[in-house]
Amino acid sequence: MSIPKPWSEVLPQLVHVASGRAHADVVIRGAKVVSVHSREVMEGWDVAVVAGRFAYVGPDASHCIGDTTTVVEAQGRYLIPGLLDGHMHIESGMLIPAEFAAAVIPHGTTTMFTDPHEIANVLGLDGVRMMHDEALLQPINIFTQMPSCAPSAPGLETTGYEITPEDVAEAMNWPGIVGLGEMMNYPGVAHADPKMLAEIAATMDAGKTVGGHFASPVLDNAFHAYVAGGPADDHEGTRESDAIARVRQGMRAMLRLGSAWYDVESQITAITEKGLDPRSFILCTDDCHSGTLVNDGHMNRAVRHAIDCGADPLVALQMATINTATHFGLEREVGSITPGRRADMILTSDLRTLPIEVVFARGVKVAEGGKLLVDCPHYDWPQRARQTVNMAPVTYTDFTVSAPEGANTATARVIGVVENQAPTRALTADLQVSDGRVMPDAAQDVAQIALVERHRATGTVVNGFVSGFGYQGKMALASTVAHDSHHMIVVGTCRKMMAAAANRLQEVGGGITLWAEGEERALVELPIAGLMSDRPAAEVAAKAEKLMQAMQDTGCTLNNAYMQHSLLALVVIPEIRISDLGIVDVTRFEVTDLLVNT
Amino acid sequence: MSIPKPWSEVLPQLVHVASGRAHADVVIRGAKVVSVHSREVMEGWDVAVVAGRFAYVGPDASHCIGDTTTVVEAQGRYLIPGLLDGHMHIESGMLIPAEFAAAVIPHGTTTMFTDPHEIANVLGLDGVRMMHDEALLQPINIFTQMPSCAPSAPGLETTGYEITPEDVAEAMNWPGIVGLGEMMNYPGVAHADPKMLAEIAATMDAGKTVGGHFASPVLDNAFHAYVAGGPADDHEGTRESDAIARVRQGMRAMLRLGSAWYDVESQITAITEKGLDPRSFILCTDDCHSGTLVNDGHMNRAVRHAIDCGADPLVALQMATINTATHFGLEREVGSITPGRRADMILTSDLRTLPIEVVFARGVKVAEGGKLLVDCPHYDWPQRARQTVNMAPVTYTDFTVSAPEGANTATARVIGVVENQAPTRALTADLQVSDGRVMPDAAQDVAQIALVERHRATGTVVNGFVSGFGYQGKMALASTVAHDSHHMIVVGTCRKMMAAAANRLQEVGGGITLWAEGEERALVELPIAGLMSDRPAAEVAAKAEKLMQAMQDTGCTLNNAYMQHSLLALVVIPEIRISDLGIVDVTRFEVTDLLVNT
Repeated sequence: MSIPKPWSEVLPQLVHVASGRAHADVVIRGAKVVSVHSREVMEGWDVAVVAGRFAYVGPDASHCIGDTTTVVEAQGRYLIPGLLDGHMHIESGMLIPAEFAAAVIPHGTTTMFTDPHEIANVLGLDGVRMMHDEALLQPINIFTQMPSCAPSAPGLETTGYEITPEDVAEAMNWPGIVGLGEMMNYPGVAHADPKMLAEIAATMDAGKTVGGHFASPVLDNAFHAYVAGGPADDHEGTRESDAIARVRQGMRAMLRLGSAWYDVESQITAITEKGLDPRSFILCTDDCHSGTLVNDGHMNRAVRHAIDCGADPLVALQMATINTATHFGLEREVGSITPGRRADMILTSDLRTLPIEVVFARGVKVAEGGKLLVDCPHYDWPQRARQTVNMAPVTYTDFTVSAPEGANTATARVIGVVENQAPTRALTADLQVSDGRVMPDAAQDVAQIALVERHRATGTVVNGFVSGFGYQGKMALASTVAHDSHHMIVVGTCRKMMAAAANRLQEVGGGITLWAEGEERALVELPIAGLMSDRPAAEVAAKAEKLMQAMQDTGCTLNNAYMQHSLLALVVIPEIRISDLGIVDVTRFEVTDLLVNT
Repeated sequence: MSIPKPWSEVLPQLVHVASGRAHADVVIRGAKVVSVHSREVMEGWDVAVVAGRFAYVGPDASHCIGDTTTVVEAQGRYLIPGLLDGHMHIESGMLIPAEFAAAVIPHGTTTMFTDPHEIANVLGLDGVRMMHDEALLQPINIFTQMPSCAPSAPGLETTGYEITPEDVAEAMNWPGIVGLGEMMNYPGVAHADPKMLAEIAATMDAGKTVGGHFASPVLDNAFHAYVAGGPADDHEGTRESDAIARVRQGMRAMLRLGSAWYDVESQITAITEKGLDPRSFILCTDDCHSGTLVNDGHMNRAVRHAIDCGADPLVALQMATINTATHFGLEREVGSITPGRRADMILTSDLRTLPIEVVFARGVKVAEGGKLLVDCPHYDWPQRARQTVNMAPVTYTDFTVSAPEGANTATARVIGVVENQAPTRALTADLQVSDGRVMPDAAQDVAQIALVERHRATGTVVNGFVSGFGYQGKMALASTVAHDSHHMIVVGTCRKMMAAAANRLQEVGGGITLWAEGEERALVELPIAGLMSDRPAAEVAAKAEKLMQAMQDTGCTLNNAYMQHSLLALVVIPEIRISDLGIVDVTRFEVTDLLVNT
């Protein structure tokens, strides 16, 4: 299966089927068809499909049926458009696009707007193209937003590759590119940074959509300047006032329900209570873990949640269908059950509980009763995508924090993890010195953290301390998922375990591993760019579940602890982080010393 | 003044002004700003403009004001977006684009989507380009839809030029082209006519919008086939069910209020009573005479009317702003008061009566209190556009209807004009024969009609009879506005007057003239393509008014009689018409005999 031919190329086929001079490939009969244009339900309607597109939508498609037509009886069920995810990162599922698609198709997702920002940091434009190319092989629609911000914090970290305005301009010519991925460098835009504005201009000149990301809660003149700089949507709002402010500025407010994002309930009141026009509101997931996809759902979960929060079911569906399609200039291609559009649709018995009973994509039945019925072809990932952990083996001495000459104790800066929050706290701790080495301290819940450079084999290992995980005994957790530059983060209580864990990831080409008391307790292999598995979601979710268990077994009681681990190098969120350039004070945007001079 | 630079080129300016590092050209302070995105009114807001675009829209633009900034105090008035006309023909005003713009700017129209279908029939692609080029000179936004159907009735008439799919493909590259003009050949689309589908495909492939026109009230499978053929909107609906049917098919329903179109009241109940989502409904004028523009208004008249019909004022405004902009893929360019868009806006004291107090286009004050404040530059219309009445002088013998040898009477087919309706009735009349000539008969209200070929000087004069105007005495009315092929239509009771009127139009290069009792009683010169004047609307309206009076003075009591005159050659609307090929039976789409064999 591949991208359907453009409507313009199959006009005669569609016209002939609609007028009864040719036969449809598929007819669905006797459905309650939901119109997301008029916001109505049409009872007892039929749809006819040819060449992967709707040819006829109306009260009686008998004239479209011939010997070769597959007729599906809806038996009075609702027929709704396939669901669209307005903004998301496939890498967050730790799955390649094919396996992500395989996981979400049974949930009714038929279109995704994806920003392969993570792989861009590891493999640059080359990696984006691989994601883009695998996306185009899928039986559903995966549109790619060209990542905008690699590095996301220039001067504070070294990425594997950087994205330039020239890269953006080049990508705008690729068939699956729909716009620019979230412009995270909002201070840059507000200060008219020429590089950021050049990326935006290249996207605008291509007639495509600029994704936004204004992460500050302060909607001052910097916010207004950011809007003037062109981003057309934003998914960073968390309060009702955030959503309203964005819509008043002519942006689309994207409301997130991801694995760890809960931004729908607090913002949807703009519609349900304030009565604003819902057309500018869009549902998205942003980030979903494989476990969420396996156990809870995807966009169907977001739509159900919006309904549970008080949205009219038809309005909630619009927020996951036509609103999204219109935003990206694709309303004549996807997002509704009307002639010419790709025949993506779902049979469901109830608009509130939204059971996803049968899913069609481009007229093909792709899932039924939660079971995937089609192949999701893999791209032939080259070796350069599978060998991205580019480092020499480390030894335990690489993880030594040397104390000042003659000191018995030292005061160190400590990254303080806060449960369920992305920001960290800048703490300090008085630590013992032993054999000239500053020691971690389980009693104070201070473990070691190290960032191991893994893109250019520079041998750089930056050491520091972290607090809040609660690890006990001799253990280490290493991961090559380390937003946004995706070096390797190792947290541990024991240098030997830290070295073992780091070397294990080098051996398997990336992933996450937990070592304790001299042995490996859990491993999630992520061989593609050190970020993604090419195995099915259920398998990856099971391994991730085992990893969570191993973290708990070593004393970690923090909710969502692995996410906290993977964000420890995210040097755009305050207060203190680690990067390949050192310990970063994110309140002052500068590298600082690990040890405090007292 | 000319088209403002793209947003992408002025990003730094907008960002600097929004953040207060540079000064705005214009700031409007203390307005009730209407958001057509959120459907709200924000009280006490300011807007700042630079480079013709909104840079800042928010509660306080003080930081955008500098020495060179023009500050306008809104004094608590509403600030609404400039109004958009979703579909219209400039030629219907008998004005060139510049003078049409000059007439509508004081009414608050700042964007028009225009289909120069009439000039296309006279001058082909060359004429379309002239309209397009004058449009781009104006201080407001005039987007051009490439005409699709010239001739509109292939085989039944001969146009000055024909439009081909190659013409359409070429025009898609012009800067002001926004899509394909109304696809009137709906039977052709429904039957998959390769030429019609090729025009549509060329438009789709250019990423532009295909205008629709499904004129039949029967919404059968031909309607569904037409929708499958790609038209994205339709303004031909007249009943509530027409509008609903179109929106359910994913089309935009365009509701017309023109000089002679009254299709809003009957259809807007889809929103006001049926509660459908209003986003797919758009207001347009289609055809406005100069008199309407001078005396009644333009899109402000349509918005007021929608409100009078029960629409919420904010919904009515959406139907003339953001809905239209979104439909044409231009919502980040026009249609709302939000950053980046062209700074087109209106100050008004009341959202229901909608007085158009001050109009800004691209940040420039273009009208105040009904007075135009800017130039609307004329294109340098070449001689080939001014010399389109290409015919040798005629004599009264050209208007002779010969009777069969020896007959004393003859039965003739007569075009029966029906007051206030576009369709005609196919009548017959028994007429006297005198000197071998079939005579008109004032007693039966049967006048002569002639179509004089005027594109290629073929010398063709087709004669016939018409009933319903009520003309008395010796008179003739001639016009070079003769939809759609725009030859010359002469209606009269006297052959000499008919010849005098026809020759007069040849002499002045086209227009409308009424002759009675040996002298000219009224003349409206339309030297541009025989369709348009390059004089101001008020002057043209005064001459048209004088013409109407002259028509009444010669016995015509029909409402809107001149429009009836100009539609007598429109061989796509039943039942009977005249063309350069003969008398046309439009119920059977064939040329028929004038005299009935009895």
